[in-house]
Amino acid sequence: MEMKVIARIENRFTGKFGIPRQSGLADTEEARIVFLPEFRNPDALRGIEGYSHLWILWDFSEAERKEAWSPTVRPPRLGGNTRMGVFATRSPYRPNPIGLSSVRLVRVETDTPEGSVLVVSGADLMNGTPIYDIKPYLPYTDCHTDATSGFAGEYVDYRLAVDLPADIKAEALALGMDEGMLQDLQNVLSLDPRPAYQNDPDRRYGMSYGDYEVSFFVSDSCIHVSNIRLRSS
Amino acid sequence: MEMKVIARIENRFTGKFGIPRQSGLADTEEARIVFLPEFRNPDALRGIEGYSHLWILWDFSEAERKEAWSPTVRPPRLGGNTRMGVFATRSPYRPNPIGLSSVRLVRVETDTPEGSVLVVSGADLMNGTPIYDIKPYLPYTDCHTDATSGFAGEYVDYRLAVDLPADIKAEALALGMDEGMLQDLQNVLSLDPRPAYQNDPDRRYGMSYGDYEVSFFVSDSCIHVSNIRLRSS
Repeated sequence: MEMKVIARIENRFTGKFGIPRQSGLADTEEARIVFLPEFRNPDALRGIEGYSHLWILWDFSEAERKEAWSPTVRPPRLGGNTRMGVFATRSPYRPNPIGLSSVRLVRVETDTPEGSVLVVSGADLMNGTPIYDIKPYLPYTDCHTDATSGFAGEYVDYRLAVDLPADIKAEALALGMDEGMLQDLQNVLSLDPRPAYQNDPDRRYGMSYGDYEVSFFVSDSCIHVSNIRLRSS
Repeated sequence: MEMKVIARIENRFTGKFGIPRQSGLADTEEARIVFLPEFRNPDALRGIEGYSHLWILWDFSEAERKEAWSPTVRPPRLGGNTRMGVFATRSPYRPNPIGLSSVRLVRVETDTPEGSVLVVSGADLMNGTPIYDIKPYLPYTDCHTDATSGFAGEYVDYRLAVDLPADIKAEALALGMDEGMLQDLQNVLSLDPRPAYQNDPDRRYGMSYGDYEVSFFVSDSCIHVSNIRLRSS
């Protein structure tokens, strides 16, 4: 079957590095789902505002997939050395590179220059990612409170402290960031963007965030922001 | 993007009519997920037994889709007259006809003549449906206990009584059904396979179930089984 792109996402995750590993983790991050002209029909969204959450089916291939699928993959949260079956993971390196993410529906914007747009939060998609389908989240069939997870569940429940020095914050504000965006950035950074098998305080990281490039290093379970600049500069 | 079929489902839903409307409703119904030879690699399932639930991404087109997508659809549970936006429903008549279902993982059967097979329960797929992807259900990102649903949530929580007369039960047993299968059948029937806008006690329904054809009618909120026979006879 041939899949048709129906929409694209617009958000601040302008680079691959630093995108949250699952949906819902960066729960304050808003994104816009903009439909392609062929699917820009307000009727297709009728009643969607009755749902608090949506599923997005999306394309791993542009943002993340670099190679063919493999029967086993090395989940970053297992230290990068343990191989798991691809169907026991959410890895992008799958036979059909379709991502599945639940997001919160914040609001429906009607009559924008791009037609009706869905504003959602918590998406773990890179800016520009093609979207194939949007479905309502149905609690009675999608929410399994008795579900147990294997290895993936053990590694998610930590956050790093984030140190944003006052001079760098002032510089970011001067460059056009606002307090809310800085708060969201710190929320994303606290999720620890590093591969789990890296723990080197001398290593410098760079992450794209909206129009900005954020530099940081990690030492003593704390992310230290060392620079924020405009990406184009 | 071109989607590759990786597996097919084998279960008792041998006809379209009577398949539960969402996954999990017929929670005792077991199904086998049999991989195509190209994807019949036990390594690809390594670690999957650590999960209680799985997501299946599957193809609506063979079992259910008869027409092109439409911006609005008429959900059966709303009486068939109210039009909702396709992205506010789980309707099969979507731009990309991909179904999304969560199922319970019962066990992994290794070394069968068809390689490693996943046995799952609660699937709402027709027998033979092509499957595109299998992902673990991750409670921390997939289970939203605070999620609210719109119109769909109001219509699901009822069951019909099922009347299986003793003589028909005896006949079914003589034809090779066992008690467990009859119990599962009654569970499926209690979900009310009728379109929601039909309420005619004189109407006769026929439903394929495994190798059997089950006839029934509905009167006074009770499903009356009127015949069970072998399909080929």
